[in-house]
Amino acid sequence: MSTTVERDRAPKQDRSRATRRRLLEAAVACLAEHGWSGSTVSVVAERAGVSRGAAQHHFPTREDLFTAAVEYVAEERSTALRALFPSGPAARRAVVAALVDLYTGPLFRAALHLWVAASNEDQLRARVTELEARVGRETHRIAVDLLGADESRPGVRETVQGFLDMARGLGLANLLTDDSARRERVVAQWADLLEEALG
Amino acid sequence: MSTTVERDRAPKQDRSRATRRRLLEAAVACLAEHGWSGSTVSVVAERAGVSRGAAQHHFPTREDLFTAAVEYVAEERSTALRALFPSGPAARRAVVAALVDLYTGPLFRAALHLWVAASNEDQLRARVTELEARVGRETHRIAVDLLGADESRPGVRETVQGFLDMARGLGLANLLTDDSARRERVVAQWADLLEEALG
Repeated sequence: MSTTVERDRAPKQDRSRATRRRLLEAAVACLAEHGWSGSTVSVVAERAGVSRGAAQHHFPTREDLFTAAVEYVAEERSTALRALFPSGPAARRAVVAALVDLYTGPLFRAALHLWVAASNEDQLRARVTELEARVGRETHRIAVDLLGADESRPGVRETVQGFLDMARGLGLANLLTDDSARRERVVAQWADLLEEALG
Repeated sequence: MSTTVERDRAPKQDRSRATRRRLLEAAVACLAEHGWSGSTVSVVAERAGVSRGAAQHHFPTREDLFTAAVEYVAEERSTALRALFPSGPAARRAVVAALVDLYTGPLFRAALHLWVAASNEDQLRARVTELEARVGRETHRIAVDLLGADESRPGVRETVQGFLDMARGLGLANLLTDDSARRERVVAQWADLLEEALG
């Protein structure tokens, strides 16, 4: 957050940053709702109330816009997740539920569309692969911290990784139907199993 | 497998069945390679070496063809999986590895394209939802049998479900890159955790 004085000094820069943020948020919403084939720079610009020219000034290509959008929202989610547990490691069941929640909202839906499109489009593939690795490492770091997992113990790293794979699979199971009732039971059971495994 | 006598009696029916099978296999390969937007009845007919008319005789709509294809290949995979362990429950690590393998090949890739397309296309959505539920139930049944899991014990059902969600998540992690080295370590660790949890 900038002070009033700073804001007066650089109002143009602030407006530009706000426009960028509007574009990124519109891009994620658009991907989640319409998939890759229905998501173009023009559609996003209109949704964000920004001219196509201004959108292209910020993001020269469609690939730039959508990879930046998924990365931006993933960072926002990471920050929000850490803020939920400000004093670090917390009750395992609450942490497990919050981590699983990362994979059941519009961000996961948007990222899934991007991944699947990237698997058939070479232009997108390298960038999404790199993005996925970066976001995956950060999510793993947060999970280790909040679960209070000691990765120096054999098997702990793989336990956390497998749990995050499970969270991703639960996200996929929620794509076409509301899977929340089943998910809640699975999460309760696996929170107990993780509790035992992580000690 | 039919006997020679039966085959002579109904050669036309056999040819029709063989054509149908070729179309189904070509449809799954096409979906896995080109995604939903690149998969039409014409493309599949050409790949299968079948006329477009013949293809439409078997599958009047694009939705008919691709949902039938994913179901057919899923059934083939289930049969093959049961055949791997003919005497029922087997060493947990081998069963866990075989179940995870279900989610890392072309079938999973094809199914993923179909799911993601269905999330944005109403015509496809209801059919894929129903198909996913049916295939999911069958996979769960096989997993319970081969893992020798006693679902009358509290938590066992959710333990198996969560493991299958993890397998699905591992499939997703394999979409853009070869994740097999990491996956092997995760599977080894989770096979041990399952062993303890299932007793």
